[in-house]
Amino acid sequence: MRNELLKNRNHDPRITYRGENATRLDNLTDAVFGIAITLLIFNLTNPNSFADLLTFTKTLPAFLISISFLVLIWNEHLAFSEIYSMNDTWLTILNTIFIALVIFFVYPLRFLTLFLTNNFFNTDIDVSINGDQVPYLMVYFGFVAFALYFVLYLFYQRADKTKQELNLNTFEEFYTKQQKSRLLIMLSMPLLSIIITLIINEFSFIWASVIGGVIYNLYIPLIIIWNKKFKKKSQLHE
Amino acid sequence: MRNELLKNRNHDPRITYRGENATRLDNLTDAVFGIAITLLIFNLTNPNSFADLLTFTKTLPAFLISISFLVLIWNEHLAFSEIYSMNDTWLTILNTIFIALVIFFVYPLRFLTLFLTNNFFNTDIDVSINGDQVPYLMVYFGFVAFALYFVLYLFYQRADKTKQELNLNTFEEFYTKQQKSRLLIMLSMPLLSIIITLIINEFSFIWASVIGGVIYNLYIPLIIIWNKKFKKKSQLHE
Amino acid sequence: MRNELLKNRNHDPRITYRGENATRLDNLTDAVFGIAITLLIFNLTNPNSFADLLTFTKTLPAFLISISFLVLIWNEHLAFSEIYSMNDTWLTILNTIFIALVIFFVYPLRFLTLFLTNNFFNTDIDVSINGDQVPYLMVYFGFVAFALYFVLYLFYQRADKTKQELNLNTFEEFYTKQQKSRLLIMLSMPLLSIIITLIINEFSFIWASVIGGVIYNLYIPLIIIWNKKFKKKSQLHE
Amino acid sequence: MRNELLKNRNHDPRITYRGENATRLDNLTDAVFGIAITLLIFNLTNPNSFADLLTFTKTLPAFLISISFLVLIWNEHLAFSEIYSMNDTWLTILNTIFIALVIFFVYPLRFLTLFLTNNFFNTDIDVSINGDQVPYLMVYFGFVAFALYFVLYLFYQRADKTKQELNLNTFEEFYTKQQKSRLLIMLSMPLLSIIITLIINEFSFIWASVIGGVIYNLYIPLIIIWNKKFKKKSQLHE
Repeated sequence: MRNELLKNRNHDPRITYRGENATRLDNLTDAVFGIAITLLIFNLTNPNSFADLLTFTKTLPAFLISISFLVLIWNEHLAFSEIYSMNDTWLTILNTIFIALVIFFVYPLRFLTLFLTNNFFNTDIDVSINGDQVPYLMVYFGFVAFALYFVLYLFYQRADKTKQELNLNTFEEFYTKQQKSRLLIMLSMPLLSIIITLIINEFSFIWASVIGGVIYNLYIPLIIIWNKKFKKKSQLHE
Repeated sequence: MRNELLKNRNHDPRITYRGENATRLDNLTDAVFGIAITLLIFNLTNPNSFADLLTFTKTLPAFLISISFLVLIWNEHLAFSEIYSMNDTWLTILNTIFIALVIFFVYPLRFLTLFLTNNFFNTDIDVSINGDQVPYLMVYFGFVAFALYFVLYLFYQRADKTKQELNLNTFEEFYTKQQKSRLLIMLSMPLLSIIITLIINEFSFIWASVIGGVIYNLYIPLIIIWNKKFKKKSQLHE
Repeated sequence: MRNELLKNRNHDPRITYRGENATRLDNLTDAVFGIAITLLIFNLTNPNSFADLLTFTKTLPAFLISISFLVLIWNEHLAFSEIYSMNDTWLTILNTIFIALVIFFVYPLRFLTLFLTNNFFNTDIDVSINGDQVPYLMVYFGFVAFALYFVLYLFYQRADKTKQELNLNTFEEFYTKQQKSRLLIMLSMPLLSIIITLIINEFSFIWASVIGGVIYNLYIPLIIIWNKKFKKKSQLHE
Repeated sequence: MRNELLKNRNHDPRITYRGENATRLDNLTDAVFGIAITLLIFNLTNPNSFADLLTFTKTLPAFLISISFLVLIWNEHLAFSEIYSMNDTWLTILNTIFIALVIFFVYPLRFLTLFLTNNFFNTDIDVSINGDQVPYLMVYFGFVAFALYFVLYLFYQRADKTKQELNLNTFEEFYTKQQKSRLLIMLSMPLLSIIITLIINEFSFIWASVIGGVIYNLYIPLIIIWNKKFKKKSQLHE
């Protein structure tokens, strides 16, 4: 109905959006995300005095960073399920792993929120980490990010395999393959970061932390290149 | 379908309600609000004896005040998303900040609930605040209220910018602009309250608290004036 | 769509179901109920040993009683919103109070769950209540039950008032009035129980507890009478 | 609408999917599942140091096992409500018991998660269970699994009874009966496991634990046989 009223701003007219009405699997996923986002800062501190309230306020900038990681991942799920819809035994299994990883992402993000807040404001929140543990922290985050993007890759892989049942048109087939290559970029950066961090860590944990983090900047040129290619090739389908 | 059955009581017939079916971003927001409302009083006290249960009961009036702040904000989100629908990269980003601010609103509201309950009933709930901290509490609430209404202003700002893609008719364009001016009123009161509280606080924390609170009463005449203007001008579109 | 496929089993063909698609206010309410139900037993005990797990198991019968109170109330909300749909400033305000009361219902229900479990199985869960406090516990439950049914009464009152905007047909008008009288029965029993408990408590707390509880049995004949009248009168509308 | 666009991959064309749009009872159930899944690992450990974070990571494999039990059960609920839709007083009551059992399933699953994690990694999470308690743990799980599948059996039983109101066609009637026999298999295995565990436990708790667990492997041949029969018989309906 909405489609008839206006061309949805983010929607491509060459794609049929099979899952515009949220399925119950979408609802379940949204419920998990909603709780995950809320629990991200809940119980961190229990403000019964005004001083506690001030400490709590200082977590806002770090919280905004943490929450955007979750929303980014949620957005990937939305983008997939809008186009291909989620009702398939395999997708249910993948979605289960996806949900589990999201919940696993919350704890490190809570940790990150507290850690960043301490760095920003020198609060008295108790987070203990030594300099030589930072590389392992980077490996940890890298692993969860890798796993999440790998599951998302498998989502598109599944859509690609069932393209006949889904009646994908030629543009949609092309789109699916392009998304797969985009997610390959997304998942290979954390993997690269893990490997390089672990290698350099043999010599210096400071350089391992720095270079392990800098690697993620490679996302910017790689996604720009992917985007250009995608736009160029997709014009052939008009 | 419902539209065909009856004219929705709160809906304006000159407006096309693009987002009548809740999007997944709406669902996510609702999940966060639902959890936020529930956690507003959960864990405040853990009633295992009958005396605890009585203490807990006394939080009801203060809880009703706190919950209405959250529902007011939720209602603003509903009013926007019903008309313009939420599917746009920018709106997703704004909505993320909005969700984060809502969760941040919960903690001070918990604090307010306990504080008001103590004032109403002299309970033994442990909330420590000194008289000279009250102005800062007012600044804190003012800041969160300001930030929430500012994000809501940006929502309408975004709708205004994409009016062509949204196919807004002339009345809808007018409506959007009017909402923007209404939200300017909503966000400027907390800002004014913050500034005046901080200035007067230099001389007397008691007067700072009182005047900082009284300023919010300006909402009443300002919204009445806005409302009159809106009704008058909107008749031209009939 | 579903309506075309089959006559919904619980739906009356003489009634137009205006709110068959859940509104966002419904979704928010459902989220609150979902969390309330889950938190009903969560954190009650933290089973890290097998003995704790066994203690926890014993809460199942009491939990089933507590959860059915919540589902009964939820069902009333569903029945109303399916017919009249929830989009109206007044209904939003009433719904806010309704949500708040539901959350307030959870704590006493947690208390009841622990209390009943102790009575059923003599577990070691720590709940302290003296015999002379039982009448006050009955007053407490009576009050929450009264408040919930009173708000539900106001829901139908509101629907009755806006019958013209809702385009209620004659059967629907009749149905609305009948629901109002049913809810009057529902809300007057707790009220009666509170008054009688308080009066008898002056003389004996044991008899106050017993009679205060027995009064709720009046529901059975009263609802049977209401039901007969409703069926008889509703035949005139066929 | 979606049905017109493509044949849903998991949907049988001989079945009318009456409940494709989620009812509010579905939404409530999803909210409970979402919270249950999230709370499965929340509060297990509260990682404020990097060492805690590492301990937490080790719960991932056990968590994936626990979460898949919940999703399996959720999937059964989905499969039923998609076909028969959930709006009926009896189904509401059954669904209430179902929700309660799901929440009751979470605690043992949390226990299982910690237990398995300790077995996999020798972490320092505190879970105390003696060898001779393992048979009782198996009885416990067996009971919850039995109760859940029994309620699901009653769901289909209810659908079978109301087949006239539901306008079930001959294939749908056949399908309903087949599902009932499948759920009989599902519920009889835990029952068998409980009985055999209790009997053997008289002689040896080790053998009781081992055989009590091995029995669940009977699921594999039994479901394969059921599946073959179902496919064979269902061809007669083409």
